[in-house]
Amino acid sequence: MQKLIQGIHQFQEETFRPLQGLFESLARGQSPETLFITCSDSRIDPNLLTKSQPGDLFILRNAGNIIPPHTGQAGGEAATIEFAVTGLGVKDIIICGHSHCGAVKGLLDPSKLEGLPAVAQWLSHAEATKRIIEENYADLSPEDQVRAAIEENVLVQLENLRTLPCVKSRLVKGDLRLHGWVYKIETAEVFAYDRIDGQFVPLEQYRFPASDPIRRRVAATI
Amino acid sequence: MQKLIQGIHQFQEETFRPLQGLFESLARGQSPETLFITCSDSRIDPNLLTKSQPGDLFILRNAGNIIPPHTGQAGGEAATIEFAVTGLGVKDIIICGHSHCGAVKGLLDPSKLEGLPAVAQWLSHAEATKRIIEENYADLSPEDQVRAAIEENVLVQLENLRTLPCVKSRLVKGDLRLHGWVYKIETAEVFAYDRIDGQFVPLEQYRFPASDPIRRRVAATI
Amino acid sequence: MQKLIQGIHQFQEETFRPLQGLFESLARGQSPETLFITCSDSRIDPNLLTKSQPGDLFILRNAGNIIPPHTGQAGGEAATIEFAVTGLGVKDIIICGHSHCGAVKGLLDPSKLEGLPAVAQWLSHAEATKRIIEENYADLSPEDQVRAAIEENVLVQLENLRTLPCVKSRLVKGDLRLHGWVYKIETAEVFAYDRIDGQFVPLEQYRFPASDPIRRRVAATI
Amino acid sequence: MQKLIQGIHQFQEETFRPLQGLFESLARGQSPETLFITCSDSRIDPNLLTKSQPGDLFILRNAGNIIPPHTGQAGGEAATIEFAVTGLGVKDIIICGHSHCGAVKGLLDPSKLEGLPAVAQWLSHAEATKRIIEENYADLSPEDQVRAAIEENVLVQLENLRTLPCVKSRLVKGDLRLHGWVYKIETAEVFAYDRIDGQFVPLEQYRFPASDPIRRRVAATI
Amino acid sequence: MQKLIQGIHQFQEETFRPLQGLFESLARGQSPETLFITCSDSRIDPNLLTKSQPGDLFILRNAGNIIPPHTGQAGGEAATIEFAVTGLGVKDIIICGHSHCGAVKGLLDPSKLEGLPAVAQWLSHAEATKRIIEENYADLSPEDQVRAAIEENVLVQLENLRTLPCVKSRLVKGDLRLHGWVYKIETAEVFAYDRIDGQFVPLEQYRFPASDPIRRRVAATI
Amino acid sequence: MQKLIQGIHQFQEETFRPLQGLFESLARGQSPETLFITCSDSRIDPNLLTKSQPGDLFILRNAGNIIPPHTGQAGGEAATIEFAVTGLGVKDIIICGHSHCGAVKGLLDPSKLEGLPAVAQWLSHAEATKRIIEENYADLSPEDQVRAAIEENVLVQLENLRTLPCVKSRLVKGDLRLHGWVYKIETAEVFAYDRIDGQFVPLEQYRFPASDPIRRRVAATI
Ligand SMILES: [Zn+2]
Ligand SMILES: [Zn+2]
Ligand SMILES: [Zn+2]
Ligand SMILES: [Zn+2]
Ligand SMILES: [Zn+2]
Ligand SMILES: [Zn+2]
Repeated sequence: MQKLIQGIHQFQEETFRPLQGLFESLARGQSPETLFITCSDSRIDPNLLTKSQPGDLFILRNAGNIIPPHTGQAGGEAATIEFAVTGLGVKDIIICGHSHCGAVKGLLDPSKLEGLPAVAQWLSHAEATKRIIEENYADLSPEDQVRAAIEENVLVQLENLRTLPCVKSRLVKGDLRLHGWVYKIETAEVFAYDRIDGQFVPLEQYRFPASDPIRRRVAATI
Repeated sequence: MQKLIQGIHQFQEETFRPLQGLFESLARGQSPETLFITCSDSRIDPNLLTKSQPGDLFILRNAGNIIPPHTGQAGGEAATIEFAVTGLGVKDIIICGHSHCGAVKGLLDPSKLEGLPAVAQWLSHAEATKRIIEENYADLSPEDQVRAAIEENVLVQLENLRTLPCVKSRLVKGDLRLHGWVYKIETAEVFAYDRIDGQFVPLEQYRFPASDPIRRRVAATI
Repeated sequence: MQKLIQGIHQFQEETFRPLQGLFESLARGQSPETLFITCSDSRIDPNLLTKSQPGDLFILRNAGNIIPPHTGQAGGEAATIEFAVTGLGVKDIIICGHSHCGAVKGLLDPSKLEGLPAVAQWLSHAEATKRIIEENYADLSPEDQVRAAIEENVLVQLENLRTLPCVKSRLVKGDLRLHGWVYKIETAEVFAYDRIDGQFVPLEQYRFPASDPIRRRVAATI
Repeated sequence: MQKLIQGIHQFQEETFRPLQGLFESLARGQSPETLFITCSDSRIDPNLLTKSQPGDLFILRNAGNIIPPHTGQAGGEAATIEFAVTGLGVKDIIICGHSHCGAVKGLLDPSKLEGLPAVAQWLSHAEATKRIIEENYADLSPEDQVRAAIEENVLVQLENLRTLPCVKSRLVKGDLRLHGWVYKIETAEVFAYDRIDGQFVPLEQYRFPASDPIRRRVAATI
Repeated sequence: MQKLIQGIHQFQEETFRPLQGLFESLARGQSPETLFITCSDSRIDPNLLTKSQPGDLFILRNAGNIIPPHTGQAGGEAATIEFAVTGLGVKDIIICGHSHCGAVKGLLDPSKLEGLPAVAQWLSHAEATKRIIEENYADLSPEDQVRAAIEENVLVQLENLRTLPCVKSRLVKGDLRLHGWVYKIETAEVFAYDRIDGQFVPLEQYRFPASDPIRRRVAATI
Repeated sequence: MQKLIQGIHQFQEETFRPLQGLFESLARGQSPETLFITCSDSRIDPNLLTKSQPGDLFILRNAGNIIPPHTGQAGGEAATIEFAVTGLGVKDIIICGHSHCGAVKGLLDPSKLEGLPAVAQWLSHAEATKRIIEENYADLSPEDQVRAAIEENVLVQLENLRTLPCVKSRLVKGDLRLHGWVYKIETAEVFAYDRIDGQFVPLEQYRFPASDPIRRRVAATI
């Protein structure tokens, strides 16, 4: 803690000066283009990873980068996403999982959740991930099941994300893009889910999802 | 009501006899292949529409053919779907909206919901439909907005359906298919959503969604 | 599934014609007199059972014909019932259980609910049924306990139904009637709960509950 | 507050002595026969009203003597009642409303609830009462509507009470009785709801509800 | 029950007369200065304990004197407290636990909660109490753990109380005081939590919490 | 978005190398000492502000740095905090608000929340903040009310934090410290709430809250 306070002092003395103009202009308002959703894990620093500046990334973090689907009583995730999508008009949403995720490990191995009842309840929003692993990856080793679950969970949470009204409507309009990433801590590699391949691929091979305007559907039928 | 009781009498006298063997064998168990989800509207008779027999269709009906997404406390919809998908192993799920749907009309015109607070709360699960119409179909007439909303709502509810763990896992496995339909009461036409076209098309032009085994994703990345 | 689509074709070719006038007039609105609540079980076809026509029955179906009581956040059941009672003004509500109900079997034997967490949660709304069986029918065989539970559950759900404000108020007014039925699949028999006897009786012996205007209570006391 | 502390001192000095033996034996356990549910209103003292002793009444009090019906997540009311009914085996439950009840006034006149959002949410469990008044007592003066609502609310809450599994099962068994009372503060009169009359009557005319053993229902039907 | 009715008769004949003037003036409105929150336990009579009169204490009682913290959907506790604090303007809130509390015993020993699922759910609002005992009083005997839990639970519920908006705002304003008490049934002793000592002390040694006006904080910083 | 991907490339090329050893050792596990809770606002970079390294800070971010209090169904905030406190054993928790917070502005001015229903629902967990401003800072200008609300909200959320069982128990044990901070974007100043002063003070004047072992309370009383 003492180190943190010294760090702040050092930030104020050294880092703030060259950024002072930026910060003063940011005081008048933010207009980030990207919502970055990731785990609370201390080993992830989204700004460092993307070499981005204050003002660039609106950031939502919780244990396991989990997004509960739409309900009549919004929690922090739905509210934060709505603030970013409708309030700030971000153009891209990234859900970024990561290797060695403790939340995903707990999901697959409930013995890790003893004494953690709140975590266990929270992971109900990743129950689909668990079920996918149990019913489709049963032959893998526990370590490989964790790896698979980290990837599948990003896709499950993307599915949940699509149920939020503000997201769904912007997807129909064609001016919002969703991305599923996995960050590998030990090598700094990033993998992105490629819809056409149905696979996570290295970021440099990743093809952006097209954002097309909708095709109006009403004429065809009733 | 008296008419209903006479109808039952007539059913027992006339209709039951030729079906008695079927009913007796059904008493030993059911194995429907399809879960049919539709509105409670009195003008829809799923068995009549599909000329199906007792034992063929597992049927879930509520106002607006709405499916709340997965939460930690399942309601009737999630439970009924899980019973069908995991308990009975159905192969296909159809969400079937319909023309002139009162629930969809109430969604777009809240003045229709006065004195109906429970309906208003329930429609929060179709809030995405409402937002899609407001933000993408604002130029249509009210009547055409209702038509558009009936179609869009089927797609929104399909999205919700995909968040249910039992559904999601079976989709990954590739042995469950989801279908979005709209039934036009006055002409008996059925339209189905074609993923490739991004349009509802007459049922005879409808291409079935492929059910492929999953591509295992774990090898590629972390 | 292919069979269903053929059935629809056959319906359009053969069945729709004689009903076309009915369907066209129904397109202008529905006015069913009865709300029929039953299980999603594929072996039940309410329209077939009652020989009723499109437009006659507003139909709510879920696993176990369960009605959660009134809460501040209505689910599909409360909304659908309010739509029928207040929106459409139905005169009668029937809750119809049935023999061999899988949901009731799961309620009494939790081992049947493994892998079905959503069903287990949903059955919390039938916990009173379970408790009634455990505390009052403990001496019966498991098969007879299922039979008893099917009947008791209809009564429990009727009790839940009475907590819905729209139902309760119409009961006080005296222009809505509630009915508890059990349908025996293998014999096509229907039994109805007779309040005076405190028993389910064959439908032909069933005495309708009177619908009296209320006695105004305020004068007598405070 | 100072007065309260003096009162406690006085209680310890004067009142406790003659009751010391009772209190010492009560320290070994309680076995009240009655659960008394009433409003938090400061003008009601259930022990004074019934001249009962410590150990006689298990007492549940909240604003409006309201009992939410059974849900999967019990609140204080359901838990307290279960503790009394199943844990302590009480034989009678009384819900006792009262004249001039502020909660009921707020229910009928939402302008009284400004600045009281929690009260407004809580009163959703008395929505049936409100609806009964609006739809059945519209011709009364506001004062008489309050009177009617106080009575009707006792009956609505009795209905909610019957959905609690522990209550419902004991009612089937026939060894628990439910009573609906209204207490008139200014005259000390108590009125009880008489099921046969369908009216609240002065307590001295009140006929106890019979507690019969159940009629076993299973033989008659399926 | 018969005894209760006789008690009421006796109250009306003997006790009401001298209080008639008080009751008649109370019929015009209540203005209690204190909200007294305690357990539903039959051995506690708050009015007797404090020698207070009708009109003096607004009383909230449930199993375990538990107060769930603020949520978007208020239960009976939050509503009753808001009614007292904002509606009636009480000056003091007392949470009064007691020796031999069955709810606290159940909290520490789940085997006591078999057949009491609603109580078990309700006690989730005292989970902090349980955790405090497990992690800080593990070396005590079970009896002493119950004693410690009774005290700690009063403090936990005071913490929950502080999250209610109506309470929090009045605390900032400095015109509301919160008190934590424990009542020992067998000796009629009352202990109060003294913030300065960090201990429960006999009531006669209890120093009232000061109610200071707030220090306005905004000038100092941003 | 293209810029982000270039940034990642640059990170991998330039920044990762010197940190490779750190990242490889972090792949074996994290042991952060601090949980840092702050707003999702793009202008805040907790790692930059504190000059901390990957592995140092467990970070929870949502719109408004809001922490719902303990309930029986934990959301992302309670779960993430439990993961940090119980799972990882952090020693300090900082809730860090900030100047110009959009969530706080929306809280005070509901007109800013049109089209943002999820944000409005989420802000119910800051209702105490709103009420404090309305009832205690009514004389301030709107701008100063926002400033006051940013500070008060940090204190309200600290209060909510204390209701989480894992936090409360560690506070009793005396090995966890809670801190309330406000970060001023335009000057890079940090203010911390000083319990003794009852004021936010510049970080350099901030006195750490003592973490004392508990005083065992049981002996003194019952
Ligand atoms: Zn993680
Ligand atoms: Zn419809
Ligand atoms: Zn069934
Ligand atoms: Zn009252
Ligand atoms: Zn107690
Ligand atoms: Zn902010």
